[in-house]
Amino acid sequence: MIFMNALEQILPSDRISDNETILEKHSADESYHTPALPNVVVFPKTTIEVSRVVKLASEFNVPIVPFGLGTSLEGSVIPYQGGITIDFSLMNQILEVRPDDFLVKVQPGVTRKQLGKELKKYGLFFSVDPGADATLGGMAATNASGTTSVKYGVMRDQVRNLQVVLADGSVVHTGNMAAKSSSGLHLNGLFIGSEGTLGCFTELTLKVHGIPEKMVAGRAAFTTLDNAVGAVIAILQAGIPVARVELVDASSMKHINLFSNTDYLEMPTIFIEFHGNEAGLQEDMNFTTEILEEHQCQDLAFEADTLGRNRLWEARHQTAYAFLHHYPGKKQMVTDVCVPISNLANAIKQGRAAMDASGLAGGIIGHVGDGNYHILMMIDAQNPEDIAKANKVNEQIVSYALSCGGTCTGEHGVGVGKAKYQLAEHGAALQVMKSIKDSLDPHHIFNPGKIFTDLN
Amino acid sequence: MIFMNALEQILPSDRISDNETILEKHSADESYHTPALPNVVVFPKTTIEVSRVVKLASEFNVPIVPFGLGTSLEGSVIPYQGGITIDFSLMNQILEVRPDDFLVKVQPGVTRKQLGKELKKYGLFFSVDPGADATLGGMAATNASGTTSVKYGVMRDQVRNLQVVLADGSVVHTGNMAAKSSSGLHLNGLFIGSEGTLGCFTELTLKVHGIPEKMVAGRAAFTTLDNAVGAVIAILQAGIPVARVELVDASSMKHINLFSNTDYLEMPTIFIEFHGNEAGLQEDMNFTTEILEEHQCQDLAFEADTLGRNRLWEARHQTAYAFLHHYPGKKQMVTDVCVPISNLANAIKQGRAAMDASGLAGGIIGHVGDGNYHILMMIDAQNPEDIAKANKVNEQIVSYALSCGGTCTGEHGVGVGKAKYQLAEHGAALQVMKSIKDSLDPHHIFNPGKIFTDLN
Repeated sequence: MIFMNALEQILPSDRISDNETILEKHSADESYHTPALPNVVVFPKTTIEVSRVVKLASEFNVPIVPFGLGTSLEGSVIPYQGGITIDFSLMNQILEVRPDDFLVKVQPGVTRKQLGKELKKYGLFFSVDPGADATLGGMAATNASGTTSVKYGVMRDQVRNLQVVLADGSVVHTGNMAAKSSSGLHLNGLFIGSEGTLGCFTELTLKVHGIPEKMVAGRAAFTTLDNAVGAVIAILQAGIPVARVELVDASSMKHINLFSNTDYLEMPTIFIEFHGNEAGLQEDMNFTTEILEEHQCQDLAFEADTLGRNRLWEARHQTAYAFLHHYPGKKQMVTDVCVPISNLANAIKQGRAAMDASGLAGGIIGHVGDGNYHILMMIDAQNPEDIAKANKVNEQIVSYALSCGGTCTGEHGVGVGKAKYQLAEHGAALQVMKSIKDSLDPHHIFNPGKIFTDLN
Repeated sequence: MIFMNALEQILPSDRISDNETILEKHSADESYHTPALPNVVVFPKTTIEVSRVVKLASEFNVPIVPFGLGTSLEGSVIPYQGGITIDFSLMNQILEVRPDDFLVKVQPGVTRKQLGKELKKYGLFFSVDPGADATLGGMAATNASGTTSVKYGVMRDQVRNLQVVLADGSVVHTGNMAAKSSSGLHLNGLFIGSEGTLGCFTELTLKVHGIPEKMVAGRAAFTTLDNAVGAVIAILQAGIPVARVELVDASSMKHINLFSNTDYLEMPTIFIEFHGNEAGLQEDMNFTTEILEEHQCQDLAFEADTLGRNRLWEARHQTAYAFLHHYPGKKQMVTDVCVPISNLANAIKQGRAAMDASGLAGGIIGHVGDGNYHILMMIDAQNPEDIAKANKVNEQIVSYALSCGGTCTGEHGVGVGKAKYQLAEHGAALQVMKSIKDSLDPHHIFNPGKIFTDLN
């Protein structure tokens, strides 16, 4: 109660809530992970307010969970130890667009689509597209990526500077506005992907790109998964600069057709996109077509106009929702390993075999240009048997990925779902990470239980 | 003496040296910074040997300086507190080339040119080219970059994994072989650019690229610096994907002609390069030519064959040596700020004015596509007046760069020369860096006095 009273000294009462509906809204993400309620949700509008809340939480040793839109897939925002959830939805201003510098400064609650709409006015775009319309703060917290990272990189590649509130309430900046720097230790990269365990982001300076002169997207169906993955590897090895290259398996194509009323061939399908000038793209497309045909491509269509391109990617982006729609009441466990490209075909085959053996329904999609793929498994989140089955598949997939030098999470983050794999993946380096966590957040108030399971 | 005896238990005596010539060779870099001798130089061949040396140094509280080839420009490898210099020249094996994964694993003593020669056999190349034939360990330690980073990125963008010996002698790995990862805290980025203050790198896994189908380089001279910089900004803003774009001022062109027996126009000159397929490049070159002509370009020549291209870049890379050759006995102070592109023209004009006011001779070159430029000032390193003049110019330039959101070092690192600007640049974040340093190297045995001046 003393804590709540103190909180009311910092924020107006209409931006502090322990209303049950609000608490519930902040108790879960889009994953199968068990929800848990925070004690209170606050809605700051400024960095100073965030700093005061954090300082207070530090004094009272109350856990803090930063919250964007709750689109996490690994429980990163679920407040398992209660405490304060800081909802950033009122910090949603695009603060500055610097078209000459290809930079934009935003508050953490700005969403990807909101930013895209604003940048379009300047002939610019933000390259990271994880599918969901997540907040940029959340995307930076998990080092999100998605379909375009094969060309433009992941969140960590786009962030030039963060304003961060640390555990003692102090406010620091982690970078600058220059295109490169060798000055001091690289805090930018460290905070990105830290999932709220080191501090709260209150401003982000992001790199943006000029909208390419020309974009062409294509779709190619194959009779076997092997041929589809083989074609992707051959395209990458030929050095063709793809902007996106996605794999969708036959089962996923079937659910896309059902959901989106499309009539795509229900075979393993590659979605691909090129960005560049007209003459260069034509040469890239010709070369790509040759490679696709060498891999017994059954059906090939390119879309050069915006409408056709959007329709094509919309279908791809709906895959997860198409499954959820088809299995009402069920949740999805989505795996997220990333492997070296040379291991990709085997990894996907092993993943498909593991899912088939489990008896769970689902599909495989992947950002295959990066060696990152997802198995979507439909489960009844109330049924411990389903969860056990899905966990077993996940364990087999992660174990394979680690055995070939990959990672347990390519883009979703660790949250609670991947914490158990951290020691296997990082070995003695996990202790280095813990030392850094201890030195920056000595009382472990920031998102306790995430990434590091055994810190209290 | 007890320490030396203990060292002899770890390494054969022919790989431990306190011979004066050897100590002197490890007392300086390529900069104007005052040399200082280490007490002993060791030449390990394996990670285990490095680990044992570090453990011993830790026990005896002896400073450790990792040493590649000594091409640093900020005194990063000068052992001002004596101790052990670990020379990595015997750890110079290319351990593995994985062409299918676009990865290579090397020991830290492998040089850039050595790697390039090996990769060529596979149709691959390593993209970071700082000019000097530095070791890859050293390049990672300073987060080096150079002419190609405008397209391919800096060292930090190429390193997938490091094997690092920590202060207690333990060996960790900081990453993996996947193209992306959201697993755990991002140690890779933190260790890169840490200049030997957090640990010793003993293995590096690096991203490599396929040699582009086609490369074209060009050279364009302008009557004014303003027109030259304006042309570069216009090219970037047009979204033309340049692979390199360099500025060389009139005074530097004059010294290049003297040194290389060339007859280039002695005017501000842009060196530019494109990588891609033939049709795309032609379109990029046409568009670029239009922009250059709009900016009153006086002389324009493209070189498509390897010989011509190499000759052109050789000239550019010789700039620093051309000045040194022209002023025998003098040293160079090289500034290294990086600013947002929109501030670049003003920054360079301010830099030129500051140098002119100082009375020092010198030139300006720059990786202008990144907003990073260098003023080369010729000084007599024994003459305190010269050093004071150069320091004053440097301070003015750094101050301007920081005032517009830039950085005091774009690619050379902090070493000792930029340590005094760390607080101004990073503010409260410098304390965060120090906390991390303290937690990973509590007794400050790794490269003491570098980056952080006030730790002992």
